[in-house]
Amino acid sequence: MRRTRSPVRPVGRPRPIPGIDSRERLLNAAVTLFARKGIAATPIAEIAAQAGVTAAMVHYYFTDRQRLLDAVCDERLLSNVNAVWASVAESNASMPDVVRTLVQRIMHAAKLQPWLPSLWLREIVSEGGQLRERLLSRLPLGHVQTFIAQLTTAKRRGEVTASVEPRLVFVSVIGLTLLPLATMNIWRRIPQLQRISHDELARHAESLLLHGLFAARSKSRRRR
Amino acid sequence: MRRTRSPVRPVGRPRPIPGIDSRERLLNAAVTLFARKGIAATPIAEIAAQAGVTAAMVHYYFTDRQRLLDAVCDERLLSNVNAVWASVAESNASMPDVVRTLVQRIMHAAKLQPWLPSLWLREIVSEGGQLRERLLSRLPLGHVQTFIAQLTTAKRRGEVTASVEPRLVFVSVIGLTLLPLATMNIWRRIPQLQRISHDELARHAESLLLHGLFAARSKSRRRR
Repeated sequence: MRRTRSPVRPVGRPRPIPGIDSRERLLNAAVTLFARKGIAATPIAEIAAQAGVTAAMVHYYFTDRQRLLDAVCDERLLSNVNAVWASVAESNASMPDVVRTLVQRIMHAAKLQPWLPSLWLREIVSEGGQLRERLLSRLPLGHVQTFIAQLTTAKRRGEVTASVEPRLVFVSVIGLTLLPLATMNIWRRIPQLQRISHDELARHAESLLLHGLFAARSKSRRRR
Repeated sequence: MRRTRSPVRPVGRPRPIPGIDSRERLLNAAVTLFARKGIAATPIAEIAAQAGVTAAMVHYYFTDRQRLLDAVCDERLLSNVNAVWASVAESNASMPDVVRTLVQRIMHAAKLQPWLPSLWLREIVSEGGQLRERLLSRLPLGHVQTFIAQLTTAKRRGEVTASVEPRLVFVSVIGLTLLPLATMNIWRRIPQLQRISHDELARHAESLLLHGLFAARSKSRRRR
């Protein structure tokens, strides 16, 4: 690693500090700007400036724009996806607990990383999103398939609302968490909705999903 | 209206047929292309070609690109919004019926106009969407506010699940209808989800919402 640099540097440029911190700061700057302006409208130089390093440092760590997008995918998106879905693998948890944990982990991830819902909407979900193919080809679909299988078994045992479709539940979880978070700027224009907090949103999503999905379960419990 | 035109026309150009049909065909071509490629990537000439008229006809009916977008907003989007929300105004309907009708009307509109969910996602919900401000400034927010007020009253009467937030229900309705429709190309890549039909999606959304929102109601009914 080149740790020494020429002492003659252009005035006003931030001093590049090589090492882990600069790389992490660059990734953080990238996701923040990508979420705010979109990937296509964000020049490398702006990411570098936001991270307090020179544009040359972006090339030093990521070689080119495509490798930077790969790193965003692996180290900022897939890391979140894996953390969120890890709960599904814990096979001894009940289905309501699995769903509750899924919702809580998505909402928690979005609270710590406010750029996440917007980046999801802009660059993954939207047609032509620059992270779409990159992320989809790497997604651990096994988690979703395990989740569907678990729900299907639970439904067969009468524990899931009869008219609910187990295969669509993970799409519903996303529609009740990431979508409202990503569209907050729109619905907050309605006066009554201006003061809704992140926690109220999380509670609402969890409540709607648990009552909606496991209505059958609470009924059969009450019948006993 | 000018019904007669010069008989000398460039070879190969489709014959412009003035009148309601061409204008409607142009609007239909516009929403279809906008949904597929995005507004920024759709030239006026392509809309005209798709509608089988000359580019001059677009100017004849809409003057310029901005007026065409205004017409898309008024005649293709707001018309749908008004049709969907009309059920809320029918004050004698029960809240579960209002929610059921909302879901059914959104799903029905998207079935008849397959471009709708994609255009919603691309050009209204996404930051920088070209129909966003145009539509939001014209939205009849009174409908949403009436809906929130009705749900709040129903919740006070113990008819709505206690932990559900009445102000967020319309965002949930959209997250369970338009979002899964607009992202079908993504989740259909999962083998188990390839064959899910529009009607299964509609049934799932309705079931999840009705059980989730009105769990309290069915409990109190059963207690009687």
